Amino acid sequence: MKIQQLSTQDQNFWQQLDALLAWDSVSDEAVFATVNEIINHVRRRGDAAVVEYTQRFDRLQVSSMQELEIAPERLQVALANLPNVQRTALQQAAERIRRYAEHQKLESWSYTEADGTLLGQQVTALDRVGLYVPGGKAAYPSSVLMNAIPAKVAGVPELIMVVPTPAGEVNELVLAAAAIAGVDRVFAIGGAQAVAALAYGTASIPQVDKIVGPGNIYVATAKRMVFGAVGIDMIAGPSEILVVCDGQTDPDWIAMDLFSQAEHDEDAQAILVSPDASFIQAVQASIEKLLPTMPRQAIITHSLSARGALIQVQDMDEAIQLANYIAPEHLELSVADPQAVLPAIRHAGAIFMGRYTAEALGDYCAGPNHVLPTSRTARFSSPLGVYDFQKRSSLINCSAHAASDLGKLASVLARGEGLIAHANSAEYRIQN
Amino acid sequence: MKIQQLSTQDQNFWQQLDALLAWDSVSDEAVFATVNEIINHVRRRGDAAVVEYTQRFDRLQVSSMQELEIAPERLQVALANLPNVQRTALQQAAERIRRYAEHQKLESWSYTEADGTLLGQQVTALDRVGLYVPGGKAAYPSSVLMNAIPAKVAGVPELIMVVPTPAGEVNELVLAAAAIAGVDRVFAIGGAQAVAALAYGTASIPQVDKIVGPGNIYVATAKRMVFGAVGIDMIAGPSEILVVCDGQTDPDWIAMDLFSQAEHDEDAQAILVSPDASFIQAVQASIEKLLPTMPRQAIITHSLSARGALIQVQDMDEAIQLANYIAPEHLELSVADPQAVLPAIRHAGAIFMGRYTAEALGDYCAGPNHVLPTSRTARFSSPLGVYDFQKRSSLINCSAHAASDLGKLASVLARGEGLIAHANSAEYRIQN
Repeated sequence: MKIQQLSTQDQNFWQQLDALLAWDSVSDEAVFATVNEIINHVRRRGDAAVVEYTQRFDRLQVSSMQELEIAPERLQVALANLPNVQRTALQQAAERIRRYAEHQKLESWSYTEADGTLLGQQVTALDRVGLYVPGGKAAYPSSVLMNAIPAKVAGVPELIMVVPTPAGEVNELVLAAAAIAGVDRVFAIGGAQAVAALAYGTASIPQVDKIVGPGNIYVATAKRMVFGAVGIDMIAGPSEILVVCDGQTDPDWIAMDLFSQAEHDEDAQAILVSPDASFIQAVQASIEKLLPTMPRQAIITHSLSARGALIQVQDMDEAIQLANYIAPEHLELSVADPQAVLPAIRHAGAIFMGRYTAEALGDYCAGPNHVLPTSRTARFSSPLGVYDFQKRSSLINCSAHAASDLGKLASVLARGEGLIAHANSAEYRIQN
Repeated sequence: MKIQQLSTQDQNFWQQLDALLAWDSVSDEAVFATVNEIINHVRRRGDAAVVEYTQRFDRLQVSSMQELEIAPERLQVALANLPNVQRTALQQAAERIRRYAEHQKLESWSYTEADGTLLGQQVTALDRVGLYVPGGKAAYPSSVLMNAIPAKVAGVPELIMVVPTPAGEVNELVLAAAAIAGVDRVFAIGGAQAVAALAYGTASIPQVDKIVGPGNIYVATAKRMVFGAVGIDMIAGPSEILVVCDGQTDPDWIAMDLFSQAEHDEDAQAILVSPDASFIQAVQASIEKLLPTMPRQAIITHSLSARGALIQVQDMDEAIQLANYIAPEHLELSVADPQAVLPAIRHAGAIFMGRYTAEALGDYCAGPNHVLPTSRTARFSSPLGVYDFQKRSSLINCSAHAASDLGKLASVLARGEGLIAHANSAEYRIQN
């Protein structure tokens, strides 16, 4: 098992780092053409197109959309049939996710200026949201909770889940999670056809206002293409972790934290940064020792070899500088006093503070969302949250007096821009 | 001047309405190919490519990027040379925009759970933002204020403006507005090449984290294509207004409010909704009367004929139902008691309340942003605001005790998903 070891003292360190981080979400032209055709068919032919694609891609013998809706009762059956320990764990996780989400809720506000003008912001929930859930083995019940609960906390009245059931394979944990999260309707469809149906609506599938949730390249491409007709969440790249460690955490813990990211898929990225050279060697030894015990050994080996790294820095300041440059999805601060480091962290999706806060706790049940910005997009974007299912309307209510004063101002500016109807409209409200 | 008159009692009213609202931002394949090539050249050849495109598209005789940077002193000169009344108006508008924006600022928060776990959200500003400003006649100083001030209120340290100067034409008001808003650097470049330079950086132009601001189809296409490498604001469609009037406002005022939207461009959309049939005729008469006085008569005639409408509804409830369906960029509630109507409004970019609150006041100086969601996207998106220049990082800091409890929960869920490294990582933190 060969994992790259770097040092900030290396010549060309920053070029090496850029090469390590490089990730271009391939915009495959063939995929684009296929998805474009699927979207056009669904827009034109609605349910019939969705049914045909589902027959073809998911190998299902169905003749109507009605057969593809999964009844709410079926979700409850899935929940009731779960082993107790799993049902309780899902419910407890949901409860913690909900409690955290409540803190994110935006509230309307307004204030009145001295001139009598009321200004403010009215916050409302989206009317209808679509949640894409991948089918088969890549389906994660935790992901259902993380996507659905913030929407429900925001007050979205109708949450519609789509999940493909390839060859009829249904994931009971996913259905149970949908029941817990309060998903309103579920359709057993997937791929670009499901995204198109949600974005434009069909006779059976209502048009939504936003589509969230992870998916393969066809789903991601479709989401990108329907953006504008509906809102979308981020287009996620491979998952990443950056562990910053002072060298005092058990190296087995750190090795396993790196594995927990690397086991997601071959493109996942796990990086350790430490000022302690001997600790880095200890983690390398732990990796060698623990790797053979991992069921997903092959995936971990691939991703650590291709995209992992152990990086030695000069000191903690340099570690923080690196963290801000990388802007990681997950940042583990495995140090004695994470609170002291925190104010210097400018870019990260989620920050796991202290030796006990394994990233895996955040993936499932700590409370904050596990849908996080990847591929350095934490430079400009945020975790999925309640705020993603709310929007704002500006409020302006001018008194007659204020409209007169503002009208004079607006008139000057409108005439400066050559927009005379704007100027006249403002001037009508000027009182003599 | 023929403006469509509709009634909700018409057969096929909703089909007619959908036809009226229909707007597909044309994704032109030739534009796509051109923009793709420009972006690739700028990524590969940096400054040299930007200079060449600027020579070609903006007809400028320059040989280096250095010649294309506009010095801060030049902005101050533009400001100093403005007529007093314009300078004061811009400064007062900026002050009002800034004051409103201060209310939007997100703050970090955290709380400690009973088990000793700290959870929270750390809010930080983006490091560097690019602001696109169109060149020549379509350049609006108000737009510079509206885009730049929220970024500065958010705390963005470096704000870089790009504005093409076709054939050397510089807009002094735009430069003055940049000085007032606190723009840090300005480059006289535009088009897809400017977007590419900001998104990927060149030797002279620093890479930004987000690009905001309006532009033509090349700029919009380029923004869509670089999205992911950097953040972008919305892709704006044509501007729209929906006026809901109880029939008691001066019909000249309403006609001019419709004109103020229609004069933007031929695709702009201005719609009046009223339960009062005779008022609708009075507005039609005002339109006929006032139209010949308008310098932009041709544009107004075109947009009102092609995309305008006067719609009669049964009552105010139906008017609100229409407003929520249309989800307009600008909603004018020209009624006696707008506050009573407000709670029923679910989707609108900005809401102008009462007869005195002309939409034009909001365009320039009321305070709230004039960059608003168009083409029914107010169903899922918000006005540009300070929050668009901030992002959140989740915070999780588990006590040893809490990590032990959460570890048990995470272990069950991780094993349910077949992710054993996740489970192990959590289990290491379980205390016996």
